[in-house]
Amino acid sequence: MPQSLPDSVRIREVGPRDGFQNEPEVIPTAEKLRLIGMLADSGLRRIELTSFVRPDVIPQLADASEVLDALEPRDGVAYSVLIPNRKGLENATPYAESGRIQEGNFFLSATDTHNRKNVNRTVEESLADLEGTIGAAREAGLRCEGVISVSFGCPYEGRVEPSRVFEIAARLVGFGCEEIGFGDTTGMANPRQVGEFFAEARGALPSVELTAHFHNTRGQGLANVLAALEQGVDSFESSFGELGGCPVPPGATGNIATEDLVSMLEEMGVSTGVELEALVAASAEAQGALGRALGSHLLTAGPVDWSNRAGSRL
Amino acid sequence: MPQSLPDSVRIREVGPRDGFQNEPEVIPTAEKLRLIGMLADSGLRRIELTSFVRPDVIPQLADASEVLDALEPRDGVAYSVLIPNRKGLENATPYAESGRIQEGNFFLSATDTHNRKNVNRTVEESLADLEGTIGAAREAGLRCEGVISVSFGCPYEGRVEPSRVFEIAARLVGFGCEEIGFGDTTGMANPRQVGEFFAEARGALPSVELTAHFHNTRGQGLANVLAALEQGVDSFESSFGELGGCPVPPGATGNIATEDLVSMLEEMGVSTGVELEALVAASAEAQGALGRALGSHLLTAGPVDWSNRAGSRL
Repeated sequence: MPQSLPDSVRIREVGPRDGFQNEPEVIPTAEKLRLIGMLADSGLRRIELTSFVRPDVIPQLADASEVLDALEPRDGVAYSVLIPNRKGLENATPYAESGRIQEGNFFLSATDTHNRKNVNRTVEESLADLEGTIGAAREAGLRCEGVISVSFGCPYEGRVEPSRVFEIAARLVGFGCEEIGFGDTTGMANPRQVGEFFAEARGALPSVELTAHFHNTRGQGLANVLAALEQGVDSFESSFGELGGCPVPPGATGNIATEDLVSMLEEMGVSTGVELEALVAASAEAQGALGRALGSHLLTAGPVDWSNRAGSRL
Repeated sequence: MPQSLPDSVRIREVGPRDGFQNEPEVIPTAEKLRLIGMLADSGLRRIELTSFVRPDVIPQLADASEVLDALEPRDGVAYSVLIPNRKGLENATPYAESGRIQEGNFFLSATDTHNRKNVNRTVEESLADLEGTIGAAREAGLRCEGVISVSFGCPYEGRVEPSRVFEIAARLVGFGCEEIGFGDTTGMANPRQVGEFFAEARGALPSVELTAHFHNTRGQGLANVLAALEQGVDSFESSFGELGGCPVPPGATGNIATEDLVSMLEEMGVSTGVELEALVAASAEAQGALGRALGSHLLTAGPVDWSNRAGSRL
């Protein structure tokens, strides 16, 4: 273990968008607002709230405007929305201009096949669209993150060259992104690969925030976090309760759980700014609202209690 | 990521003892034999089969003799039994002498409180017993592993000093153990701690095999494996399907799943000798026999398929 692990990390909570979008039932707006409030109260400082998508395609997020209208800005909290296209940006712009959201998250895939299956475009076609959209988002005052799906392997095309991912990332930086998220969308990454990837990424993309977005599909999500951390990566995305994350195949685990991530990091002495008990309470609330057991480990095991001499957690 | 990761590791499969013992129902002996056969067929070279315990206390393992009578020795496979006391050793001795088992696993806890709750003795009292038992086991021809529970933290006593764990380990080595297993019995370890622990352990215990036994209680089991691996640890214990592991609190995850461990290691280029598809088939068989969903991630997600260009796993 190198002595050079970051002292602190930034975590973007993606559950209110990625998690709620993947639930079979539409979560009532009031419940969403309650959960988002609990997440912000726990100390999370980056929260992806929703996305402006077609309500007939994704009814789970049809209340995007209601969510944004109701949420008051919070000092120190950057709220973001996922922006899939120019129409989505048009809907988001008034909220950017009024200071209700601070960040926009834009995405494409590292491979043509995955990108076509997801948005019916080649990578080049997506990049051509993103150039204008990201430029306009910056004019509206949004800080922009570009997220590259299947950065560590594609279920359709297999291996993905890091150099290709960095090339796409550099284009996004050229469009105005200040942060690039690298998604292990179907959980194909391993820690050795992740370590090598980020060792290279720092050289290839020197002046931009590098964010790791791992899935726990094969149980290796936190091991990949450790490998990234050892390369100095200090920005992560995760989802409370282990919600969402495009479970592939059906039933598989998606995103790493924010509370499992926070527990590991805080136990290692890496500061997250998050109050773990409060975060677990938010996941417990979500579990109750959704009426099914969520995948988070901390929800069952609870935080490590080093002071325990009475065995009260047993 | 250092370049010095081990090229290969040894894995002891503990499911047939640790897993079957913790099932509410007694698994029929024929089913146990079938599963053990599948595990050995998958390439696992160390398998803990059962334990000689009081059948009124642990009826799940009451068929220990039947299991050992039926299992033929296999070239290259070390079968072991967990030996809790002198009486257990007496029952195991004929199987050691006839070459049906090759190893004995002996255990105690790193703290007095945990040891008392588990076996109603202080650590010193357990050590006094173990000296004679391990000596006799060696005379019967068994290679001996001493397992130290709660090596990374105790739910009753909190922090555990590594120096105390190494002191207990050195005593066990003095009794004749050729291998020491360090158990994270309730999943309190974090990767930084694990890295520091094994960096010290190599100096404190230079001439003995060091084996890491992690639990996935808080989702960090494979991250702890990575941290140990980076310190040169090349021996691990795990349980197929994620069976067993003394789930604390109830419902929590216990042992790391052998197939999740094998997947991560093989993807990293660390050889395990295990055929992953065959191992997953054994876990699927156990899942069917037990009639409930097991915690293993690979059981749902399947192995990573880098050659996939048709998306057949989607």
